[in-house]
Amino acid sequence: MSFTLHKKDGEARLGTLKTSHGDVPTPIFMPVGTVGSVKTMDSEDMMELDAKIILGNTYHLYLRPGLRIIDEAGDLHKFINWDRPILTDSGGYQVFSLAKLRKLKYDGVEFRSHIDGEKIFIGPKESMEIQKSLGSDIVMIFDECTPYPATYEQAKESLEITQRWGDECAKQELHPHQMLFGIVQGSTYEDLRIESARYLADMDLPGYAIGGLSVGEPEEEMLKTLDWVLPELPEDKPRYLMGVGTPPQLVESVARGVDMFDCVLPTRVARHGTAYTSSGQVQIKASKWRNDFGPIDDECDCKVCKGYSRAYVRHLLSTNEFSGMRLMTYHNLHFYLRLMERIREAIAEDRFEEFRQDFHAKYQRGQGEREERQVKRNKALDKEILDEKRARKKMRTQPKKKD
Amino acid sequence: MSFTLHKKDGEARLGTLKTSHGDVPTPIFMPVGTVGSVKTMDSEDMMELDAKIILGNTYHLYLRPGLRIIDEAGDLHKFINWDRPILTDSGGYQVFSLAKLRKLKYDGVEFRSHIDGEKIFIGPKESMEIQKSLGSDIVMIFDECTPYPATYEQAKESLEITQRWGDECAKQELHPHQMLFGIVQGSTYEDLRIESARYLADMDLPGYAIGGLSVGEPEEEMLKTLDWVLPELPEDKPRYLMGVGTPPQLVESVARGVDMFDCVLPTRVARHGTAYTSSGQVQIKASKWRNDFGPIDDECDCKVCKGYSRAYVRHLLSTNEFSGMRLMTYHNLHFYLRLMERIREAIAEDRFEEFRQDFHAKYQRGQGEREERQVKRNKALDKEILDEKRARKKMRTQPKKKD
Repeated sequence: MSFTLHKKDGEARLGTLKTSHGDVPTPIFMPVGTVGSVKTMDSEDMMELDAKIILGNTYHLYLRPGLRIIDEAGDLHKFINWDRPILTDSGGYQVFSLAKLRKLKYDGVEFRSHIDGEKIFIGPKESMEIQKSLGSDIVMIFDECTPYPATYEQAKESLEITQRWGDECAKQELHPHQMLFGIVQGSTYEDLRIESARYLADMDLPGYAIGGLSVGEPEEEMLKTLDWVLPELPEDKPRYLMGVGTPPQLVESVARGVDMFDCVLPTRVARHGTAYTSSGQVQIKASKWRNDFGPIDDECDCKVCKGYSRAYVRHLLSTNEFSGMRLMTYHNLHFYLRLMERIREAIAEDRFEEFRQDFHAKYQRGQGEREERQVKRNKALDKEILDEKRARKKMRTQPKKKD
Repeated sequence: MSFTLHKKDGEARLGTLKTSHGDVPTPIFMPVGTVGSVKTMDSEDMMELDAKIILGNTYHLYLRPGLRIIDEAGDLHKFINWDRPILTDSGGYQVFSLAKLRKLKYDGVEFRSHIDGEKIFIGPKESMEIQKSLGSDIVMIFDECTPYPATYEQAKESLEITQRWGDECAKQELHPHQMLFGIVQGSTYEDLRIESARYLADMDLPGYAIGGLSVGEPEEEMLKTLDWVLPELPEDKPRYLMGVGTPPQLVESVARGVDMFDCVLPTRVARHGTAYTSSGQVQIKASKWRNDFGPIDDECDCKVCKGYSRAYVRHLLSTNEFSGMRLMTYHNLHFYLRLMERIREAIAEDRFEEFRQDFHAKYQRGQGEREERQVKRNKALDKEILDEKRARKKMRTQPKKKD
């Protein structure tokens, strides 16, 4: 278990994270497999998409199926049929965002399960125990994800809790193959962020995450925070920006030196009908695409774009067929994973800055001619359908001649 | 477009239905692709499962996406990315079971769409026009599916409508590649069923379906009806039993001379957590399987059974992950398609009767030892979980010693 930084192109970094379940090339995007499954996907899909590492949510897995069942299966890898690397979060984020009747205590949080109201306690010790049982390759410290906005006092107090819990986590025993990542907090306050980064850097952990971002702050605040934090983190350790983000945010974060990302966006918005494409986000469910027989993304070579049209995927989405959500998810994950691959290629070839400019220019250009053409075609289609209805009605309402 | 009967083993028949989209070996099961998609599956899945032919529902496709869009795509095959054969039903069944405010008229049915209440008329002419547009390989006559139970008078009247509409359908022009199948009705009355079969046989159609079964009648009534009808149908034409059925019903129907089946059971019950296995139906969602790490079916070689455990699939189902429904659907379709393949092999090797006995004996034996073992393991698991909770609670409620 180690991280190797191969090279830099500007601040963008090319690396490899070695784990006992295989190598992860960085920069990397990690699809989110909440309860041990990337929503609508199976592990065969994820292999086909060549996802190098996925994320599992400790909170969700602890509630269902529970540790006893995962223990019996062996570990999370075996339970979900995935033998590539897994990163587990600490459960902290969900405890604060999902659980009910939370009571913050010195050594953790007491809460009621959002599933059945059961009273549960998770603190740093418990989180490490659970993640040890899950057998994930990367284990996150149990932190408090400071909400946004927070006053300086709140952010400071919250950071103190995270630091105390982080110390406690570092004392717990993990499996030899597991790597513990610290989490930088401190809200949008420069001195707190820097203090947090330095505190963690001193702990000499195998990796560092930047948490408490993508929680509602403006994008510029997020990027500014990266500018404060990243220079404080050791060069030879991977940097993971938690819960981020849109495709342009990934590119901008890589430009600042981030190596790892996870985000529910590509899978979540897919289920609501939004596709990521080389020319920006497209709401495929929109009526204007109902007779667009081209692919979701003209520049994409995924199996969905090769086999299915916008019109068909739109039809599946609007008839509530699960397969519509699945095809959308497959495409979006392919887009994200291929984006990271292109980023890695660009860094390797010392042309990341060029790639970055090209990417943004294309991504912002929108649907252009394709949209204009569809608006016209839709008007024509509406007219045809109306004419046909009228003709049928006329035919049916004319009095029948008896033979 | 033709049907070849290769051989018989008892009354069980081995044949090939040639279509312009490829050959269909019979006996065959046709998965139901309601709105142009077998629920939770995509066309790649259906190729992987080696489905030889699928069914599309005229009523659903007519409402959404509508003919204009399918026309623009070319035909249904092109719209849904499936170039193997498609059978379309006539829309009659859904008009009678789903549509609102139906008015039965001499030349069809006026009704309101179950989607948006739009007033629509479908009769034999319209159904043929729609199926011609869809471009399916097998087109069904527009019939009235007689409800069960029906009095003799009701059944007779309903049959007359079906015959009148059938005559009208036969007059309509289809594409040269399309085969029109007649539908035998007559409820559970021997003379009506025989009359219907003979009437259709005289029409010399490319194929014949037996309709109005699997609509609530006892299984023995269904099999008795087959015994009346099948001898009246020409040997050299395919016989299709509509909407049937369970695995044992498929075997018993083949034994009586049926060649083709369609049914929503394998896909529908999958989404509710029920698997078909070589030893009968299993409710995978049941709590007792939560720590069974064996496959859904010990004798199945599908990718779901090779890759995933009952415990994991149960976990996905109980956390409402779509992928749980999808894995279940994949397995059930594999079971049905493989069952038909085994039936064809048995007929080819003149051992269908032996196969039939073996199949029923195994299918009825149930989960046996596996279930007993799980009941014990579940009790042990319950105890472990309870002990652990108590221990955690005790640990947390003991007063902390201050350092």
